[in-house]
Amino acid sequence: MTTRQDLTLAYTPGIAEVCKLIQQDPDAVNTHTFCRNNLAVISNGTAVLGLGNIGTKAGYPVMEGKAMLFKRFANIDAVPIMVHATDIEEFVTTVEQIADSFGAINLEDIAAPACFEIEERLKKSLSIPIMHDDQHGTAVVVLAALTNALQLVPSHTKSSRVVIVGSGSAGIAIAKLLMVGGFTNIVLVDSKGIISSDRSDLNDFKQTLASQTNPEKLSGSLADAVKGASIFIGVSKAGLLTPEMVTSMAPDSIVVAMANPVPEIMPDLAHQAGAALVATGRSDFANQVNNALAFPGIFRGAIDTRSPITEKMKLAAVQAIVEYHAKDLSREMLLPSIMDEAVHKAVADKVREAARA
Amino acid sequence: MTTRQDLTLAYTPGIAEVCKLIQQDPDAVNTHTFCRNNLAVISNGTAVLGLGNIGTKAGYPVMEGKAMLFKRFANIDAVPIMVHATDIEEFVTTVEQIADSFGAINLEDIAAPACFEIEERLKKSLSIPIMHDDQHGTAVVVLAALTNALQLVPSHTKSSRVVIVGSGSAGIAIAKLLMVGGFTNIVLVDSKGIISSDRSDLNDFKQTLASQTNPEKLSGSLADAVKGASIFIGVSKAGLLTPEMVTSMAPDSIVVAMANPVPEIMPDLAHQAGAALVATGRSDFANQVNNALAFPGIFRGAIDTRSPITEKMKLAAVQAIVEYHAKDLSREMLLPSIMDEAVHKAVADKVREAARA
Repeated sequence: MTTRQDLTLAYTPGIAEVCKLIQQDPDAVNTHTFCRNNLAVISNGTAVLGLGNIGTKAGYPVMEGKAMLFKRFANIDAVPIMVHATDIEEFVTTVEQIADSFGAINLEDIAAPACFEIEERLKKSLSIPIMHDDQHGTAVVVLAALTNALQLVPSHTKSSRVVIVGSGSAGIAIAKLLMVGGFTNIVLVDSKGIISSDRSDLNDFKQTLASQTNPEKLSGSLADAVKGASIFIGVSKAGLLTPEMVTSMAPDSIVVAMANPVPEIMPDLAHQAGAALVATGRSDFANQVNNALAFPGIFRGAIDTRSPITEKMKLAAVQAIVEYHAKDLSREMLLPSIMDEAVHKAVADKVREAARA
Repeated sequence: MTTRQDLTLAYTPGIAEVCKLIQQDPDAVNTHTFCRNNLAVISNGTAVLGLGNIGTKAGYPVMEGKAMLFKRFANIDAVPIMVHATDIEEFVTTVEQIADSFGAINLEDIAAPACFEIEERLKKSLSIPIMHDDQHGTAVVVLAALTNALQLVPSHTKSSRVVIVGSGSAGIAIAKLLMVGGFTNIVLVDSKGIISSDRSDLNDFKQTLASQTNPEKLSGSLADAVKGASIFIGVSKAGLLTPEMVTSMAPDSIVVAMANPVPEIMPDLAHQAGAALVATGRSDFANQVNNALAFPGIFRGAIDTRSPITEKMKLAAVQAIVEYHAKDLSREMLLPSIMDEAVHKAVADKVREAARA
């Protein structure tokens, strides 16, 4: 905008022509403004990183960081929107009222179980791409990691027991996507122990999962769950998995300990206790499992096709990551690097394809 | 963000340190994130340009254009937020719930009289700088224009009659600021005629103004108001001011016809009918009067000092524009060019000074 003429076009009176066009054809907002590529990272700050319910101001930096990743890896213009509402009804209403401002919504760091109903309701009422990344971004990367891990340690299969510790938004979403991906023996563990149909203290979401998981009808503690298990997935707390528990697992176990910043078990301890393959959420250890590998490409693909984000698109993202990394796969490099720009492009391409199909 | 180390700082785990800092000291959100310099251009699309109530999608381009001006002239990062609510209560609640996401709020294109209560309530409940630009940005530039005009045509003074046609948000705000600026004989005209105390069809805001304006107790039509008046200010509709009306004004009248895109009278007709000085809202005629001369600098100054926007800061902006333009002032160049970057800096400087004082 350097000349008076530029100003006349970008602002009054030129802008009135664009308004009139959109008035006649609301869809033109996607082709004649930057709205479509403008994504809101929306949170109420109730479950921020490992810090918990720290609110809308203290949660802001995470949304800001996420906005930078969107721009850096998917050229999406993102803006943090902190919503000062913990009540589901209030939160949903506020987001619905501002939704015309954006081409997509990334829900972030919202506590379970509220996050499930919030995402479900917004996906129903709004037509733009919406995804709660703590659930689905994480689940996509974990499924990609396990797909690769089974190639590296072929003594385990999709019918081997997978124990997921932590039954918040990430744990539940991981369980669901692993089932979609063909895993048949999943055991969820929360702070009270193994989630099974005979427990009377479960919320609706956990109750549903209790009936779909735990085919061996296990009950008891985390130690009971991991005994003999092939795969451990942690989205819980620092130090929860002891070396003794790892030793009690099936030989050559796979340990994905994603608690942040301190994992459920440190990699060296897990290896000493018998694990064949260890991954964490951290960038300073080998095998980082982080949703930043998935969400930029998923949203890029969804925005480009203006499609709601479906299970098929998530599986396409998994496939993209796995295929992209096939020739570089090793026990020290389970997944591609987040900094590898080409993997984000590969994810976006596959997601676009799936959306169009 | 080019290395893994950058990622570690900008995102997890580094970002957790910033969250913890803000948790202890909420004010740190202003120094350790980009929140402070992030401004929302918020509208419900009920009074967009001259187009009226065109809604949240069709109104989007105006907010987008405004965001560009904020960046271009004041280095403020702005984002359009369209709120799908015409009810005052709903609108205010939604804005309050997302306010922690922003360092300032520019209210835009909200119909009168709702805009008055909305701005008043938000200024009370939120501590960040907030301004409804259609009111105050316009008023600041009009007061600067008239201050300059009286220097060029000294036969008129601040006690000469000023007729303001159009009693929406802009007209009412102009009347108020002109009074603060020392003008003593203002007559407002709406679609029904002159606003006077004997009218029974006025809303609260117009009623209050009726008692503060029109000292000559005029009544009747626009033609009655302008007869013998020194200054005409139009924020109404194309062609409302006829050449005959201009001829009926005091000799060497001042005509500021800001209806967009077609003014209340075309400059050549106004001159032929006897006007000494003519200004419009258009960039393709001499003497453009446009709020883009004021709002970038006003918000820059307010954000830098984290101050609510006060009458004194608005008057400082007027003074900045007038002083900046003193040596270039002429009947063909009543105000500085919007494209002149130095004027925005001058406004910001004076506004900062006023805020600190």
